Amino acid sequence: MSEPLRPIEWTGTSIRVIDQTVLPGRLVRINLDTVDDLVDAIVRLAVRGAPQLGAIGALGVVLAMVQGKREGWAPDRLASEIVRVRDARPTAVNLAWGVDRVSPLVPQGIEAVLVAAQGIVDEDERINHEIGRHGADWIQARVAGNVRVLTHCNTGALATTEWGTALGIIRELHARGVLEVVFADETRPLLQGARLTAWELAQDGIPHFVQADGAAASTILRHLVDVAIIGADRIAANGDTANKIGSVGVALACKDAGIPFIVAAPESTVDMATASGDDIQIEMRGDEEVVNWGGIRTAPEGTRAHNPAFDVTPARLISAIVTEQGVLEPGFGQVPEHRTAGVAG
Amino acid sequence: MSEPLRPIEWTGTSIRVIDQTVLPGRLVRINLDTVDDLVDAIVRLAVRGAPQLGAIGALGVVLAMVQGKREGWAPDRLASEIVRVRDARPTAVNLAWGVDRVSPLVPQGIEAVLVAAQGIVDEDERINHEIGRHGADWIQARVAGNVRVLTHCNTGALATTEWGTALGIIRELHARGVLEVVFADETRPLLQGARLTAWELAQDGIPHFVQADGAAASTILRHLVDVAIIGADRIAANGDTANKIGSVGVALACKDAGIPFIVAAPESTVDMATASGDDIQIEMRGDEEVVNWGGIRTAPEGTRAHNPAFDVTPARLISAIVTEQGVLEPGFGQVPEHRTAGVAG
Repeated sequence: MSEPLRPIEWTGTSIRVIDQTVLPGRLVRINLDTVDDLVDAIVRLAVRGAPQLGAIGALGVVLAMVQGKREGWAPDRLASEIVRVRDARPTAVNLAWGVDRVSPLVPQGIEAVLVAAQGIVDEDERINHEIGRHGADWIQARVAGNVRVLTHCNTGALATTEWGTALGIIRELHARGVLEVVFADETRPLLQGARLTAWELAQDGIPHFVQADGAAASTILRHLVDVAIIGADRIAANGDTANKIGSVGVALACKDAGIPFIVAAPESTVDMATASGDDIQIEMRGDEEVVNWGGIRTAPEGTRAHNPAFDVTPARLISAIVTEQGVLEPGFGQVPEHRTAGVAG
Repeated sequence: MSEPLRPIEWTGTSIRVIDQTVLPGRLVRINLDTVDDLVDAIVRLAVRGAPQLGAIGALGVVLAMVQGKREGWAPDRLASEIVRVRDARPTAVNLAWGVDRVSPLVPQGIEAVLVAAQGIVDEDERINHEIGRHGADWIQARVAGNVRVLTHCNTGALATTEWGTALGIIRELHARGVLEVVFADETRPLLQGARLTAWELAQDGIPHFVQADGAAASTILRHLVDVAIIGADRIAANGDTANKIGSVGVALACKDAGIPFIVAAPESTVDMATASGDDIQIEMRGDEEVVNWGGIRTAPEGTRAHNPAFDVTPARLISAIVTEQGVLEPGFGQVPEHRTAGVAG
């Protein structure tokens, strides 16, 4: 296994991140020096992944304060710039969570906010490893022998601060020597599965296949996998889960095939202020992600795209929600408050 | 509405087809002068679509005879070249059906085979229009007012000899003035939906969106469409249906949302020699379709793809199978022999 990949760091004057748009071809780090840089990086998905956006949100407050000090912003301007960071993507609750968690410290100065933001980064690493252990325990209690996993989008180190959520469980199964193979959905339109998940799996020497998203249901119905594991961008109070577009199709297939469908995410992804999936705002993205490829149109001129970034998987289709606290089993008729005996941490 | 698009014709010495790999950028016709040309065009999907492959199979026998006469083939060589055409793609039953339908006429000479092959081409046009009428009748009996349709892959003139199967039903609804909008899955890996279906819809001025395949389940669960209609490459005796990878995911979502999932195909797609979907051989295609784009790798070097061309939708998930003979309703607990009263032709 290679060195742990840490995709974000604070340089003293900027947030240094991996530009995820150029992977897997090149591993390029870029400095985000201003709020404009940061919002642009978030919108074009140079930085992405719910837990990573939590850390980015917190460090974004630091960045705004540093820029504001340099440029002599009035307090109102600072406040509005922090709101810009908070609202850069509407579906990912973690971004707002990261901003909100450190914002009360703004009156105490940059150093206090930085310490809190760095704490979120360090805490996320620990959380990911706990998610990995809880998830692997839950799966090993239900799947005998080697485990074949399907996953969607990217939930690894590149989506977090290190290790990963759904991919953290996969890494833990691999570390325990019981992981047989991963089927990674390519995850159109932006191919986070083909570009990022496959790259992380290859780095770790984990056996894997990339498949078109349309192949996921068939792979599950043909019992080529034992379990599907995904991340989450927002989990409503009733367990309904917003995640990358394509997730609910994976859940429907798992239900039909009778295999577990697992959501892995930090507790910060649970938004108790959102009652159900009906209340989750779904980010609609531009046509060009779907109808262009490398600057060449794949659909005729004039054809429009329907391009929601996320879908909502109802709790009834979710076998387990794995957080750093333990495992909830909404799909088994339990309310989210339930913790699985013997697994909860 | 534009002139009817007829994608295949016999020139006297060759089969002239539209090269579907360069659409929607360019509309290019190419001549297939030899069996090698024909098999290559079938394998690389320059020609494709189950009903079109039926016509291509029949004309392929003519082509083999003409080439054999020119090059002085022995009867054994001619027979083996005809088998090459027949077996160029394993899942599409229509290709073998087209070859087998005219092969008994080979001893009668080229002209007799050509007349029979041309008859299949003409018959397919008529069949498509009948499928369109039966399907539109069935839908209008169940959906009040305007109809919003989801479709997958390409089933239009480019997949047949003119008009289309699933797209023929969509065209019929449009001609009747009750079609509101079509959501066309882009259909990775080869994007027949984005490249071909959107192109045909745009030519006819039919309102449409292209979406990533992962968006299909969400579009259905959010009730943005009233019905899904797909084609078929092979329908087993029990109604299980092989079609483009991604189809069964659409079917699962329709079942969950309680909307009809319709398969549209000529009766020649029904293979009574195949008892169920378990007996259908699924064509596995190369990695490069998934992990490359325009010559640039989208996944890391060394990453393999899982690339089945088709999946199998079990009959229990199919609301209606529409052929030129009428409508079968396997998903409503009826055996395929059942014809819907008042709709059957």
